[in-house]
Amino acid sequence: MSDPIRRLIHAFSKLPGIGEKTGARLTFFLLNADPALPRELAEALLDVQTRVRLCSHCCQLTEADPCRLCADARRDRSVICVVESMQGLMAVEKTGEFNGLYHVLHGVLAPLDGVGPDELHLRELMGRLNGVEEIIVATNPSVEGEATAIYLHRLIAPLGITVTRIASGVPIGADLEYADPLTLSRALSGRRPL
Amino acid sequence: MSDPIRRLIHAFSKLPGIGEKTGARLTFFLLNADPALPRELAEALLDVQTRVRLCSHCCQLTEADPCRLCADARRDRSVICVVESMQGLMAVEKTGEFNGLYHVLHGVLAPLDGVGPDELHLRELMGRLNGVEEIIVATNPSVEGEATAIYLHRLIAPLGITVTRIASGVPIGADLEYADPLTLSRALSGRRPL
Repeated sequence: MSDPIRRLIHAFSKLPGIGEKTGARLTFFLLNADPALPRELAEALLDVQTRVRLCSHCCQLTEADPCRLCADARRDRSVICVVESMQGLMAVEKTGEFNGLYHVLHGVLAPLDGVGPDELHLRELMGRLNGVEEIIVATNPSVEGEATAIYLHRLIAPLGITVTRIASGVPIGADLEYADPLTLSRALSGRRPL
Repeated sequence: MSDPIRRLIHAFSKLPGIGEKTGARLTFFLLNADPALPRELAEALLDVQTRVRLCSHCCQLTEADPCRLCADARRDRSVICVVESMQGLMAVEKTGEFNGLYHVLHGVLAPLDGVGPDELHLRELMGRLNGVEEIIVATNPSVEGEATAIYLHRLIAPLGITVTRIASGVPIGADLEYADPLTLSRALSGRRPL
């Protein structure tokens, strides 16, 4: 096996969820694939690094500042959905149900990992609350996500802005039999009149 | 989400076993990682494409021709281990038990997929049988791998060269209870005196 192959396997195996074996599989796939494919991937990698930065409004990763969403005059500026990560933003956006703006924290409060309020993009959020009526906290329903939601509520509700939290409960299509007790107890306490 | 990000996710999702979600996870990981990492991956991708070719002897992917293994005077030139792919070669080499040479077919006979003997690197194998005493067929124990082994036996045994096949059976550490019937019947028929 040659050094360039070894190096590519090694580079792939630094990515999350990819070990030596998957790295080798990807490498040999690319060696047998259309030569345009590795080049396309390499160019996209270099491109993303030089052209992507944070939107100075919502802190999402973007090419243009303000980002496409913040610049869109058709979005409702009175609601901001706060998410942990770009993946959270993409997931909410994919529902097609939300027409407000976003704010990406790039993390959640995790004191044990040394992530306090100063490590999140909270200052940017506090600076854009003018005219905002509702903050929807869409952090993950994890311990840290919940703690962050409570923190945001304490910080923002006193300013007279409604702070809401996305619902937790049994996912659509799931079977109660297999739901974990915590999710089910959350679904019970969050019950609504039909 | 910006276009460079979308493009990188799209490029990742063309790789086997990687969909949109994993592509997004890898992309955002790289955007938050040490900037050296995406650059290292990009350079390895471009490098592997320009510097890797087939060894004219064993057909493995290599930078130098002949490859490191074929050029190594300490390897036993009387035994050739025939493998389907580079991954097969790497797996056998990792055992540390084999000191002969390899031959990479880059495929197996699969008539339904249009892969006949001409599509494999058989001509190169036939051209290097001088002085060879044993051919070990280490194709996968699949239908196609077995068919390829039988084909190689018919082709090469008449030349007075021993053609052997790696053993199939119950993997070490496995439980007979969970072994599939085909593997177990192979283990029975391949039994050896203690």
